[in-house]
Amino acid sequence: MERLTATYLIGSDAAGIAGRAQALAIEQSVECPLEAIHDPRIRDDIVARVASIEPAGPERYRVAVEIAVETTGYETAQLINMVFGNCSLWENVQLVDIDLPPDLLAIFPGPRHGIAGIRALLDAPRRPLTSAAMKPQGMTVDQLAAMCRTFALAGVDIVKDDHGIADQVYSPFAQRVPACQAAIAEATAATGKPAFYAPHLIGTPGVLRERAHVARDAGVRVVLVAPMLLGLPAFRDLVDEFPEFVYLAHPAFGGAARIAPALLFGTIFRLLGADAPIFVNYGGRFAYSRDECGALAAAARAPWGAVRPALPVPAGGMRLDRVPELLDYYGPDTMLLIGGNLLLAQGGALLARAREFVAAVESWAAART
Amino acid sequence: MERLTATYLIGSDAAGIAGRAQALAIEQSVECPLEAIHDPRIRDDIVARVASIEPAGPERYRVAVEIAVETTGYETAQLINMVFGNCSLWENVQLVDIDLPPDLLAIFPGPRHGIAGIRALLDAPRRPLTSAAMKPQGMTVDQLAAMCRTFALAGVDIVKDDHGIADQVYSPFAQRVPACQAAIAEATAATGKPAFYAPHLIGTPGVLRERAHVARDAGVRVVLVAPMLLGLPAFRDLVDEFPEFVYLAHPAFGGAARIAPALLFGTIFRLLGADAPIFVNYGGRFAYSRDECGALAAAARAPWGAVRPALPVPAGGMRLDRVPELLDYYGPDTMLLIGGNLLLAQGGALLARAREFVAAVESWAAART
Repeated sequence: MERLTATYLIGSDAAGIAGRAQALAIEQSVECPLEAIHDPRIRDDIVARVASIEPAGPERYRVAVEIAVETTGYETAQLINMVFGNCSLWENVQLVDIDLPPDLLAIFPGPRHGIAGIRALLDAPRRPLTSAAMKPQGMTVDQLAAMCRTFALAGVDIVKDDHGIADQVYSPFAQRVPACQAAIAEATAATGKPAFYAPHLIGTPGVLRERAHVARDAGVRVVLVAPMLLGLPAFRDLVDEFPEFVYLAHPAFGGAARIAPALLFGTIFRLLGADAPIFVNYGGRFAYSRDECGALAAAARAPWGAVRPALPVPAGGMRLDRVPELLDYYGPDTMLLIGGNLLLAQGGALLARAREFVAAVESWAAART
Repeated sequence: MERLTATYLIGSDAAGIAGRAQALAIEQSVECPLEAIHDPRIRDDIVARVASIEPAGPERYRVAVEIAVETTGYETAQLINMVFGNCSLWENVQLVDIDLPPDLLAIFPGPRHGIAGIRALLDAPRRPLTSAAMKPQGMTVDQLAAMCRTFALAGVDIVKDDHGIADQVYSPFAQRVPACQAAIAEATAATGKPAFYAPHLIGTPGVLRERAHVARDAGVRVVLVAPMLLGLPAFRDLVDEFPEFVYLAHPAFGGAARIAPALLFGTIFRLLGADAPIFVNYGGRFAYSRDECGALAAAARAPWGAVRPALPVPAGGMRLDRVPELLDYYGPDTMLLIGGNLLLAQGGALLARAREFVAAVESWAAART
């Protein structure tokens, strides 16, 4: 029987870890006492197995559990259920890695565009990419369209809705999307440089589908989604139904500590089709460490069977003056996303400030070639 | 401008809490520095406000934040985004309560059946209700159908799939559901007592819909779902599209600590249509406290505008010998769910053991009237 491996960090003392690991293996497979299993086939083929237990710090262990692939039914939602359904309810357990055998991996097409597709769309084969977020929510459609035009005129590659912008009365989706698309078109006609507007798609599956059609009809090529808010299976369905979109994946509702950020945002979002996972950068207003961010970017880009590499997008409390430092750390296959820090410039000064951002990225790239 | 109130437990020292609370209010509304907001309407109407900060233990504060209702767009996914999108990524922040004004609450039909509907279906107006889980996964359709028949013959009210049972090769959904329905029908014909089989619906939204149709066509009235695995918005769509089902809501993938269990499983699941939230009971194999479980049951049943009360279903490491203690604690508007503990009885002994469970509940009820 083929197995996948799920790896957990478990808090425990040395005396308790073997029992806790075994209990987790049972919880994540048959979920009943072994004495209640009377069929040897189920004991041998279905019960998950503890493959290894290694120390990982004080009162902390790294535990690898082998789970029968058959139990996943080769389905997205059930795979998540098998690796982190019930044990997400345990204290002191974090899911940190999954390793899928080839025939299970093969059910996931992953990003349809990935790094290469995004670079082709933007006609930017090598340099780091730029993104700006339109904020704050509460702005009218006209105000948003004007901001969108300004960012595109400044040379920003992707101008995205803030993830708080949905379908509110002050900027309804059906009006905002064509208006921002028109603003981008006007700007790119002036600059001769490609730029894309990424509207935020959010809603129940039925609403999502309606909005995706509106966006597609308006000529949108890049969208923003928050897979954990939509539900991972709903995200999967959306990508399958609208593979022509480039998906920027926002971490909202992703929790801080229950699934390792590198695994959730780097690996799992990518697996389900995220072309460019957005994540909170170190040294900003979130508590992620530099190493965690580096691991996340590496997970997004790592060779992985036929799954295309995804483009890491650090964000969250980014500042213009950090552009060279961040590019030195993340390298050129990166899109920097700056939101509020650009907006400190008022009115006409916004264009100049966004140009500084673009120029800082270009000069970093020029110095490297 | 109308506002909802979201309440958080935030870890902080006394000197830092005011700043942290204000930062959270900004994160959950405009997500940019206040200096970047040049429109007074947005500052007044859209920026969230800290309403109160109260000590809640050592280095811990209870912070109420008022969020403009308009920002939710009156939508399920966006409501979750506004109350716990980005700040789910913060360390030491737990969402513990939401208070929705009437016009926002009105967009949520809540449970379509609730406690009264479940009692009517089971013809059990007053007594506590019983449920048993079929485990372990890996059993064949014939084995599951036999177990289903046994539990129903014993008088168990609702016989549910283990939440690990999906659509695996050893018990395909399309074969399992009619087989278990037939087994239940046979048993209820023999006992004259109503009983229902609850299959587990899991999948992407498209798969869910297909399976819901299969279940409905087979005459299923009660289903098991795990809303956090499906995604809360996808769960909402499912309930709206198939309101005839009674929804048992499983906590899988719900995390332990980021949203208070009473709020997530008691309040939010109910709000989105769960008729009977399943939760992990105190003193079992999960770390929930007795008080947390009591708060969860209270949240599920509390009067709440036009939203029907939902039936609390404690589960997870339950034991037969605890029936009287648990009913004393939870009271009669409760469904006890016992899984693995019943299955310790092998073969023919399972019927007797399930009967003991039913008899224990009945004798508790008889002693009270």
